[in-house]
Amino acid sequence: MKISIIGLGLIGGSFALALKKRLENLTVCGWDENPKNLKEAKELEIVNIPAQNLEEAISFGDWVVLAIPVHAIESLMPECMARLGPHQVLVDFGSTKKHICEVADRQSNRHQFIAAHPIAGTEYSGPGAAFADLFEGKVMIVCDAEKSDEEHLIKFRKMCKMTGMESVCLSASDHDEQLAYTSHLSHVISSGLSNTVLEKEETHAQILNLAGSGFASTVRLAKSSPDMWTPIFQKNKTAVLESLDHYLSHLNDFRKMLDEGNEEGIRDFLNKGREIRKILK
Amino acid sequence: MKISIIGLGLIGGSFALALKKRLENLTVCGWDENPKNLKEAKELEIVNIPAQNLEEAISFGDWVVLAIPVHAIESLMPECMARLGPHQVLVDFGSTKKHICEVADRQSNRHQFIAAHPIAGTEYSGPGAAFADLFEGKVMIVCDAEKSDEEHLIKFRKMCKMTGMESVCLSASDHDEQLAYTSHLSHVISSGLSNTVLEKEETHAQILNLAGSGFASTVRLAKSSPDMWTPIFQKNKTAVLESLDHYLSHLNDFRKMLDEGNEEGIRDFLNKGREIRKILK
Repeated sequence: MKISIIGLGLIGGSFALALKKRLENLTVCGWDENPKNLKEAKELEIVNIPAQNLEEAISFGDWVVLAIPVHAIESLMPECMARLGPHQVLVDFGSTKKHICEVADRQSNRHQFIAAHPIAGTEYSGPGAAFADLFEGKVMIVCDAEKSDEEHLIKFRKMCKMTGMESVCLSASDHDEQLAYTSHLSHVISSGLSNTVLEKEETHAQILNLAGSGFASTVRLAKSSPDMWTPIFQKNKTAVLESLDHYLSHLNDFRKMLDEGNEEGIRDFLNKGREIRKILK
Repeated sequence: MKISIIGLGLIGGSFALALKKRLENLTVCGWDENPKNLKEAKELEIVNIPAQNLEEAISFGDWVVLAIPVHAIESLMPECMARLGPHQVLVDFGSTKKHICEVADRQSNRHQFIAAHPIAGTEYSGPGAAFADLFEGKVMIVCDAEKSDEEHLIKFRKMCKMTGMESVCLSASDHDEQLAYTSHLSHVISSGLSNTVLEKEETHAQILNLAGSGFASTVRLAKSSPDMWTPIFQKNKTAVLESLDHYLSHLNDFRKMLDEGNEEGIRDFLNKGREIRKILK
């Protein structure tokens, strides 16, 4: 099997490594517009063939995977789709799906495209952050699946399974609305915490020596790549604003209760929040 | 050596286990106002002697450790101090220190008291959550150390070292101000996120199936005990409100930038937040 991975960061690199671990006859052709990433991916044996250019990568694989920031997926999509041979399949791994699917819908060969989003990641980025087991036990969301060729979908699900992922279907707009709550909002929250504490550190130099594992956990996502996350927030603006407004309203309620000494209210806020432990072990 | 642990939850229980692991001749007497915790702590061999009552626990140890919620420490402190024999030392492990130290300052034997706060914990609580290595590589903050007997302090630092902790000194008011930022605020943030997503879940039943490890990390602290955290917020109200206001101002800035399509501003917010990776690896 031949696969082309465009974008050799954490997700693209890990997907290549995950498949290479399980498939003996796989050849991975890779492309990254950053030459340093391309070189590193070759050295780390993420790719067998570093492509000379984007066109070479698109034409090489039975499967062509776009693992690049969401605005770049949107821009590249028309060219990629136009270049696809009749037996090739294009897959994208973007974290927002609505705008990408809208662009895909305008292509005559829409059935050769699968809109996917692996719910996996770490706070690190680049080929050096990639590892073969990233997807173990995770979920691959496939959006607007009814628009993709069924045979391609069956093969894609098998490929996901091989890397450790179960796949679930969702409409692109439900995906974006729900991921705003379960993913994008966490990134805003975490960066906001980091900004707040780093600002305080300017006048209290040793403050971070007193930070424990709780802070480390809450602030972890702030380490993520701004190149990846800036376009995610922009592309999912409406849903992120909605989730952020709900969040701010809960925080403003808490602020008022604390200010007014409403012990019962504070306890209730914490007790309700604690219910999450029934779902996330 | 004889030690009394009052409050046999995560922190008290772990401290007992950490010392028992390293000290052969240690006898631990334990007390918990919840009979279930006392029984469980005996079964888990956290304590050798379950006390019959609080008074027995206070009179038993060379060291008496209060590992109970902060408002309970404040209430019990005068009785504990009054009952101390001349060679006994009282230590508290409360997460806020200013009010506790103010009560201690009013006692005639203030030098027999050490105000301490181990920067360690998990989101779990009760004796069953305790483990001997909780304090490995962590920091013990000692507040207003100049008011404690020097000999006691030297011994206490050795005890901390034995459990894996370095101790650092800080004034009680600096402690409370700084911990609001590096600890208490994270708990508010995390509970707020949990409340927001659980509310959304009422109309989108499967939303939490789509949550990944990033959400799990950011929401982890929401699982913490409301019995412990309600009084922490109350006792450190001023500093928590200050840190929360700074945080809300950063989030409101982000909201405005997102709403206005200020890409540069969003990127700057994320880049600044990302600086935390230079400090927390």
